[in-house]
Amino acid sequence: MYIKGVGMTKFGVSDKLSHQLAHEAALEALQDADLKFAQIDAIVCSSIEWFFSIEKQRHFASMLASVFSTNKPIIRVPAACGSSGAGFWFAQQQEFDHVLVIGAEKLMTCKTESITEEFMMAAESKWEQDEGLNFPAQNALIAQEYMSAYPQSTTEHLAKIALKNHDNAFLNPKARFYQKKVTLEQIRDSPMVCSPLRMFDCSVSVDGAAAAVLSKDKTDIRVAGSDLCTDYISPFERDSNTSWDATVEAAKNAYAMAGIEPCDVDVAELHDAFTIVELIASEDLGFAKKGHACNAIDDGAFCLDGKLPINPSGGLKAKGHPISATGLAQIYELTKQLRGEAGDRQVANPKTALAQNIGGAGGTVSVHVLRKV
Amino acid sequence: MYIKGVGMTKFGVSDKLSHQLAHEAALEALQDADLKFAQIDAIVCSSIEWFFSIEKQRHFASMLASVFSTNKPIIRVPAACGSSGAGFWFAQQQEFDHVLVIGAEKLMTCKTESITEEFMMAAESKWEQDEGLNFPAQNALIAQEYMSAYPQSTTEHLAKIALKNHDNAFLNPKARFYQKKVTLEQIRDSPMVCSPLRMFDCSVSVDGAAAAVLSKDKTDIRVAGSDLCTDYISPFERDSNTSWDATVEAAKNAYAMAGIEPCDVDVAELHDAFTIVELIASEDLGFAKKGHACNAIDDGAFCLDGKLPINPSGGLKAKGHPISATGLAQIYELTKQLRGEAGDRQVANPKTALAQNIGGAGGTVSVHVLRKV
Repeated sequence: MYIKGVGMTKFGVSDKLSHQLAHEAALEALQDADLKFAQIDAIVCSSIEWFFSIEKQRHFASMLASVFSTNKPIIRVPAACGSSGAGFWFAQQQEFDHVLVIGAEKLMTCKTESITEEFMMAAESKWEQDEGLNFPAQNALIAQEYMSAYPQSTTEHLAKIALKNHDNAFLNPKARFYQKKVTLEQIRDSPMVCSPLRMFDCSVSVDGAAAAVLSKDKTDIRVAGSDLCTDYISPFERDSNTSWDATVEAAKNAYAMAGIEPCDVDVAELHDAFTIVELIASEDLGFAKKGHACNAIDDGAFCLDGKLPINPSGGLKAKGHPISATGLAQIYELTKQLRGEAGDRQVANPKTALAQNIGGAGGTVSVHVLRKV
Repeated sequence: MYIKGVGMTKFGVSDKLSHQLAHEAALEALQDADLKFAQIDAIVCSSIEWFFSIEKQRHFASMLASVFSTNKPIIRVPAACGSSGAGFWFAQQQEFDHVLVIGAEKLMTCKTESITEEFMMAAESKWEQDEGLNFPAQNALIAQEYMSAYPQSTTEHLAKIALKNHDNAFLNPKARFYQKKVTLEQIRDSPMVCSPLRMFDCSVSVDGAAAAVLSKDKTDIRVAGSDLCTDYISPFERDSNTSWDATVEAAKNAYAMAGIEPCDVDVAELHDAFTIVELIASEDLGFAKKGHACNAIDDGAFCLDGKLPINPSGGLKAKGHPISATGLAQIYELTKQLRGEAGDRQVANPKTALAQNIGGAGGTVSVHVLRKV
């Protein structure tokens, strides 16, 4: 299928509720696609129901039916932080001509005392939730395991990932940290969250929405390959966490569908929920040899002017991570990059782009390859 | 597509958690389909995340990946009480050869003081949740509106629906109220929940799971027509609630796909979350003229030995309503009926069957037509 249009709200703190954010992003995508809502055959949407929020919504599909005054089929596909990447994958499997895919999240109204508990509902119940193994802790253990296996990688490499993504977000008007300068010293000196991860190794929660129109009509952007894979929900169930099977499998299949190799990718948006997650993903996707992403990072290969820019948008780290909107925000960014519409953060002449979106600590991973036609 | 296998747990109070219930139903469906798990291309699952339960699970797809030790694509499709009917519809749109569709719910461990609040998260936030317009109250208002428009319909007709469904559940070994005799007097004298709905007008919460294998392989049961439609989330947003647009639209499309008329349907499973909902659905599906379902009820047309048996399984009312498992439990029942494997509750020689599954008060409705090949 082809991408006919994309839309995205500014990521940050919004007065709008999640269905209103969804509406805003959807209208932008429809306008970009030059389609009327009546021409859409089905909607695939994503959002989490937050219990300790000002809005508690389990029937988001029908909320959107109200917003659009429609009887069209609307399906909600939540997959924790990998929701709208999963929705984007699932929407392609459909036989419809035009599918509107939307992800939206309202995070900034959740009560702070309960948001950790709510986030942890995406982890395994007994051995993770009950034991208090929250996502920063899970990813800190993964970072420890990785650095133990590959001691050439240090926290300095994680800091450089954070710096790169903040530098990119500085240039992105829709990013949470647009024009907010962050230095390597600030990153190094930021509070320890869970060793070795500091505050600047963690992505930032925001309100936001993103949308895309997938179409059988030929456009300038083709979805050349796409796959979704799952894995054990708990990292401790897996043989190793220095590589994530769901990413490796999904990438293998997406590359095969697209008929490309990792070296053909010109720009990528990866799921940097934590800096270590981007580092591991860059290896799992074949952008660096296992254990050697650190060298590519030292060489600046993943910077905006590097060999393969990663997260030109600023990523989850600095553009912001509105859970269910993140996967489609990646598609938004890559579409803009391939079209040459990315403004100050434009990558030089990209033809092939890759998005990777993760739910949980690697339990659901989607990988999409977009190509300029 | 075709139905290659079905499975279902006993509905009631279970010691198992929802992913274990899902596993049990899935294994039965795989065995019934004579397929190994390795032959399945993708899984579409449904379950609600309950906050005040002993398990709080937002990433159910990955939980199932753990259960099945797989990297296969697994997608969760929640749509309130219409979840697994929606999943069954969505799974058919896929290009896969074999899709396993699962719905599971663990309701009986939710704390009673909070379950109403959790259920209400499927209603609109501001004017329904904040005002305390819970689902019994919403459906009571709908019953009042219906009886005001069609005064020939009385609470006696609702009581007869409850009695019929309990009589059927009496014969269904997997039903919550298997071999539990209920009389018309008990129904009439049961406590008022919200006028005119009494306790016996409301369906019963249970733990349970159901599963089906959808396949491109030809089998004896074909999914001849299927559609999903949405509507305004709040009944007050609609012009009238004596008929539900999402049912009417979905039925129209499903009938057209199947090339049949309502009079061709031999057996049906309808979403009797409340007795009034079955009554309205029977008209919206064309089984009775608008305002005249009461006559068919008086004639016993919808009883097990009637012209068109409705809810031979006992329905949500008396088989039980495990939210996300309900839609697939309907598919399970109809498959058994069409195969002639429904035991004591077997309908005489059915060829065409219809399932209707609803999310919220008509905000999401799926309608499926199954035919014996």
